[in-house]
Amino acid sequence: MSEKFNVTAMPVGVVGLGLMGSSIVAALLISGHPVKAVAPVAADAENARERISNQLHKCVTAGLIHSSDEFEGNLTISRDYEVLKPCQVVIECVIEKRDIKSQVYKKITSVVDRDCIIGTNTSAIPISELQNHIDFPERFLGIHFAEPAFMTRFLEITCGKLTEETFANRIFKLAHEWGKEPTLLKKDIRGFITNRLMYAMYREIFYLIENGTATREDLDKAFRYDAGSWMTLMGIFRRMDYMGLKDFDAILKSIFPKLSNAASVPDIMQTLVQEGARGIHNDNGLYPYDPGEGRQWDEAFTRFNKDIHHLAANYSEENVKEQLKS
Amino acid sequence: MSEKFNVTAMPVGVVGLGLMGSSIVAALLISGHPVKAVAPVAADAENARERISNQLHKCVTAGLIHSSDEFEGNLTISRDYEVLKPCQVVIECVIEKRDIKSQVYKKITSVVDRDCIIGTNTSAIPISELQNHIDFPERFLGIHFAEPAFMTRFLEITCGKLTEETFANRIFKLAHEWGKEPTLLKKDIRGFITNRLMYAMYREIFYLIENGTATREDLDKAFRYDAGSWMTLMGIFRRMDYMGLKDFDAILKSIFPKLSNAASVPDIMQTLVQEGARGIHNDNGLYPYDPGEGRQWDEAFTRFNKDIHHLAANYSEENVKEQLKS
Repeated sequence: MSEKFNVTAMPVGVVGLGLMGSSIVAALLISGHPVKAVAPVAADAENARERISNQLHKCVTAGLIHSSDEFEGNLTISRDYEVLKPCQVVIECVIEKRDIKSQVYKKITSVVDRDCIIGTNTSAIPISELQNHIDFPERFLGIHFAEPAFMTRFLEITCGKLTEETFANRIFKLAHEWGKEPTLLKKDIRGFITNRLMYAMYREIFYLIENGTATREDLDKAFRYDAGSWMTLMGIFRRMDYMGLKDFDAILKSIFPKLSNAASVPDIMQTLVQEGARGIHNDNGLYPYDPGEGRQWDEAFTRFNKDIHHLAANYSEENVKEQLKS
Repeated sequence: MSEKFNVTAMPVGVVGLGLMGSSIVAALLISGHPVKAVAPVAADAENARERISNQLHKCVTAGLIHSSDEFEGNLTISRDYEVLKPCQVVIECVIEKRDIKSQVYKKITSVVDRDCIIGTNTSAIPISELQNHIDFPERFLGIHFAEPAFMTRFLEITCGKLTEETFANRIFKLAHEWGKEPTLLKKDIRGFITNRLMYAMYREIFYLIENGTATREDLDKAFRYDAGSWMTLMGIFRRMDYMGLKDFDAILKSIFPKLSNAASVPDIMQTLVQEGARGIHNDNGLYPYDPGEGRQWDEAFTRFNKDIHHLAANYSEENVKEQLKS
């Protein structure tokens, strides 16, 4: 792995140590930050160190770091918000509930300096809405990672109505030191960029399943071998340019009116969530899993992460343009 | 490249030698078929051999074949439909216009045997509709490739109302010999699988652009580094299982009603098509291109194709499951 992470002494805080929060902690640790992590949920406080340690081992496997020891030493886990005191950035990753987040913000702001940047990893609640629950709201913004946060280059920074751009720019710059390819969204739109695009596709794929058009396996296969064959290189607009644009107006005109406009949660998903399905995490999901199989998928993804991370690095916009010149 | 293509003496016909038709010819050639190609458009008849030759060279570069010579010798290009006579499969790839396709089908069926399978690469017109224009319609079906057809594993087989399943099964089996991961769609739905999913995303991305939410660059970047980091491995349902399902109902409920339901062609696309923009093919598209830059993107994609093809092969469903057992 050719990345160099700038080791910086700046402590960063994380509140909420579920799956995503732990993964963000690992991302910050391998970037060189001391991390002050607060676990509002008791079970998380107990399990988080082991979970993060496992994630750091995945980083070793992926060649992102040589050994996890020095990074583990940089981690403080506590149930007490006081540990956040020295932080200049705190990222909140608690459950997607407004009232809980609001309480968490009160506890954070009672401890940190007034210019400490406070970010939320939310993908469901508008930044401008959450901003109402915070003192000095101009330092509040969305810092949205993709799972697993320590491997993916994706990072979406979203300003709310009251966010001051200097704070967003500071995170944008910092994100590069985290090895990310950040996007900066100046307008606070529900679902931000990536979720809107993905959920547009989710809406359609549930429609296809519910209408018995194709099996889950076939839908996933079509997606992996069509979109999956160009997406890492191109993005959507570049793909259209590659395809030549010519027939697109005819196809758009014929397909748009036929697409699903569903506004409600699909039955399949509602049923699964009600029965406590957690996908690969408890071997109960949209696919059938043998006991322990979910864990195996997780390991396959760790290996895949490494490969696609390398591949994406080779085909960064910069690299492609560099080759254009030469 | 570890693929073995079964060399078969079975001649396959292709009608229509535009970009996609040529690419399909190359796919069939490297699978070992003698290909009988008909070019209804005079300019295509002239340019197709060179274009296909270039594509075979890309196959050499990608390590799919060692040399292009023997394959080029297997190619017949003609403007006369008579060359299709020995074919047991003919794939139509002409322009997306019903009347033109209907004329082409008349010419094909007047030459081939009555049990010759006739496939169309259409992505805009329902199979059941085109089927009305063909004698012995039970042997007619959709055979939908993804560009570049000689590299991607995607192949979508779609039955119309009158298609007999034995013919679809025959193509499904043959597709594996072409090195594809085919999907078989028994219900004829507008846009089939992959286009519906992609156009659902297109609809949303045009909405985001038209509302000034983000730049094209940022939208593509978010897509490449989020979806592009897992798509080749997982597909959509498996990704949801990986994410744990838990928060999905909350997010679906909040985002679905906000997504674009647009039914008309976006202005941006209409304008580009009207002014003759062909994307990377004439350096005029959704992105700005310096003269010759489009070609360079094409070359970058050829290199990328090779890498992602390898990667996808390493993480085929079979391989992952094999590793689960061991």
